[in-house]
Amino acid sequence: MTTLEPVPRSSAVEAVIDQMQGQLTSGTWSVGDRIPGEYDLSARLQVSRSAVREAIRALSHIGVLEVRRGDGTYVRSAVDPRPLLRRVERATLRDVFELQQAYDVQAARLAARRRTRDDLVRLGALLEDRDAACDPEEFGEADVRFHAGVAEAAHNSLLLEAFRYFQSRLRESLSAVRLDRELPDAGPAAHRAVVDAIAARDPEAAGHAAECVVVPTLQALEALL
Amino acid sequence: MTTLEPVPRSSAVEAVIDQMQGQLTSGTWSVGDRIPGEYDLSARLQVSRSAVREAIRALSHIGVLEVRRGDGTYVRSAVDPRPLLRRVERATLRDVFELQQAYDVQAARLAARRRTRDDLVRLGALLEDRDAACDPEEFGEADVRFHAGVAEAAHNSLLLEAFRYFQSRLRESLSAVRLDRELPDAGPAAHRAVVDAIAARDPEAAGHAAECVVVPTLQALEALL
Repeated sequence: MTTLEPVPRSSAVEAVIDQMQGQLTSGTWSVGDRIPGEYDLSARLQVSRSAVREAIRALSHIGVLEVRRGDGTYVRSAVDPRPLLRRVERATLRDVFELQQAYDVQAARLAARRRTRDDLVRLGALLEDRDAACDPEEFGEADVRFHAGVAEAAHNSLLLEAFRYFQSRLRESLSAVRLDRELPDAGPAAHRAVVDAIAARDPEAAGHAAECVVVPTLQALEALL
Repeated sequence: MTTLEPVPRSSAVEAVIDQMQGQLTSGTWSVGDRIPGEYDLSARLQVSRSAVREAIRALSHIGVLEVRRGDGTYVRSAVDPRPLLRRVERATLRDVFELQQAYDVQAARLAARRRTRDDLVRLGALLEDRDAACDPEEFGEADVRFHAGVAEAAHNSLLLEAFRYFQSRLRESLSAVRLDRELPDAGPAAHRAVVDAIAARDPEAAGHAAECVVVPTLQALEALL
């Protein structure tokens, strides 16, 4: 690494972003609307055009606005994702595990209704990999792959993506506190019960089994808190 | 609206963002690391310093990087939130309702364990508002406030924030297809059952009741698909 030249956190850009989100929240700008041009906005908000340009780019980046070349900038979503993205950082481990449990339970229930024969074969193999893992790192990775496998068998791509995002954030938090190897595991039988209930097409049993898998971890976290 | 001056979607900035996310995904840059300076990065990636600056700003905006004035730019999270944010746009209504059901069920279960006396008073009032609503718009808003009230009684701030984000995206989608007034409602008794189970501190019954509330909507959507 050579010289560091920090990018100043531009309060002008942040202020423009906040004002634009305000227009969206208040409903002044709705989904599908074309927003005023760069020149117009910079005059109204009394900021430089480059601040407006950067704010538009930042909001396009997260799917709030869309720049259509040669046309204009349009509203794609009026919902501000920043509170959720920021909340993850301040969340406790217990909070994240409870969110993960919500996805695990719903995924198991849906998988029990929608699993294909291929899903079952894949889940069986993932379960075996998990049981056969030799060291904690390998086990951790096999465990994540197993839970992701259940989420895939649910055939809901949004649920799968939400599972993946929060699962990754969870592992990041666990590795930051070096806690992942000390948390108890529900064991092979508890995990097999999830697959058995999915195989039997029993949503109630699958949801219950998936819930039980997270219980020892949550109890350990409650004890730590 | 005056003249429109679209911001060109800068392929240079997008390319820099992709390369930076690549460094994060591969583990070259980890959480807590200070990344190379703007000058260094622009030389390595063969792009302008302004492209690097914009990319850093965009990634800071979503909590991936953090610019510390007078110090440098640090990694706050290596997890890319863009797949999740983009997936919401392409998700089907059924997918979003199923995700919402996952939050509703988990919130009801947790609320049954953690609700305070104040939570119960508030939920009772929200239920009455919902029953007393005179027109569809008022009813829709009272319904959202009731479900948010259950999520609040769960005392998990991350779950509440995830609930809020996806709930808002869901209402945005519903209003886009003008479908929200045609979806069936589970009715007052089904909603009251959620509150009764929370009051009785019965997580199983609360989770089951919360699940039942979403069933008529999901069945109607399945029929539409």
